[in-house]
Amino acid sequence: MAKFYSVGVGAGDGSYITLGALRALEKSDIIAVPSKKSGNKSTALNIISKEFDTSKKELLELEFSMSSDAKERELSREKSAERIIAALKAGKNVAMITLGDVSIYSTCSYVHGAVKNAGFEIEIIPGITSFCAAADKARISLCEGGESVAIIPSAKGADLEKYTADFDTVIIMKAGADTDGIYEALKRRGMESNAIVSSRVGMENELIEPLREGKSYGYFTTVIIKKKGF
Amino acid sequence: MAKFYSVGVGAGDGSYITLGALRALEKSDIIAVPSKKSGNKSTALNIISKEFDTSKKELLELEFSMSSDAKERELSREKSAERIIAALKAGKNVAMITLGDVSIYSTCSYVHGAVKNAGFEIEIIPGITSFCAAADKARISLCEGGESVAIIPSAKGADLEKYTADFDTVIIMKAGADTDGIYEALKRRGMESNAIVSSRVGMENELIEPLREGKSYGYFTTVIIKKKGF
Repeated sequence: MAKFYSVGVGAGDGSYITLGALRALEKSDIIAVPSKKSGNKSTALNIISKEFDTSKKELLELEFSMSSDAKERELSREKSAERIIAALKAGKNVAMITLGDVSIYSTCSYVHGAVKNAGFEIEIIPGITSFCAAADKARISLCEGGESVAIIPSAKGADLEKYTADFDTVIIMKAGADTDGIYEALKRRGMESNAIVSSRVGMENELIEPLREGKSYGYFTTVIIKKKGF
Repeated sequence: MAKFYSVGVGAGDGSYITLGALRALEKSDIIAVPSKKSGNKSTALNIISKEFDTSKKELLELEFSMSSDAKERELSREKSAERIIAALKAGKNVAMITLGDVSIYSTCSYVHGAVKNAGFEIEIIPGITSFCAAADKARISLCEGGESVAIIPSAKGADLEKYTADFDTVIIMKAGADTDGIYEALKRRGMESNAIVSSRVGMENELIEPLREGKSYGYFTTVIIKKKGF
């Protein structure tokens, strides 16, 4: 019976691809490539193309709508799951690729559930998360000894004062829209020098630097705040 | 000039090794293998041996004391850093291997600082963390959409009631000694079915199962608690 691989390809650099990811791609007939909009260039596909000859495989582009309309999002997920299940029913192994790790803010759960309900075997291949890649590139540790870490999706509506009081490290995943607010909140606690911004880690135009006031950062921007500094 | 690689080898399975890790090992003359006690078998060495022929390389065993005596721990770290620096000064590239990712609860910071102060270039190679590997094997997501995650080193002295109230997911890294206490704390909140235990992920005797009362778990035990369940 055909098998479904859900593959984390890491945070941006081809060198973050694991041996397990390569082997899953090798064993697959079809590489399923999620995108936010049909025709969009996929970063995950770009990453694996550096280390794997995708021309030998059939590519299946899946649209996962990011519409504000919940119905539309649901419909696009259902449609994508159906297309994967149809391929599996035709006896083809499918590998769906995802940036970073599959368990961290990916939208794969729905597909996993649908594929499982259709009776097919699923294997999830772990990937390098963006925050580990950013910390390692910046040569900082996220936690040591008795330290604790909070990971939050964005700074929007988040009580940063509380997080930075309660935790040694705070990771804000999609921080791009709120960097000035983060800077202000940290300044109130005298911690404005304790934050590092990273975006496009391992990719072209990679940026890893101390958080600055009044600067615009992109969508893939993660902020790492360390209570004790660097 | 010789270079120092600090290499995350992943959480236990050889397939979690990245292409970057393999390339760093390839480029190194010496593989530095940290252990808690001299003569102990290294899990990290065991992992890379599955995918890389270590017989071509010189192995440098480094003891990192886990003594309760802070002086002793410091002394062992200093000694290990000195041995690495001596090798670098002799013109040899050194790769130090670590379980999981280097930024997450590893003891590498001291060595990184010392090597940097000695004037040598450092490259940190990210690895698959144990909690991502556990979540992926258990086919659960750690966070989706607006969810937040707390990572704490152990349950000892931790206010689990507060963590599970404030966060969608709580990861307790070294939970082996406190699993009954965790179960009790979750039961008080009616959440005793919301925890998964994992240990030795990707290794022999791997265990991934719902947290049970009155069962003994080993040292490498991680507990993942999800507020909304699985």
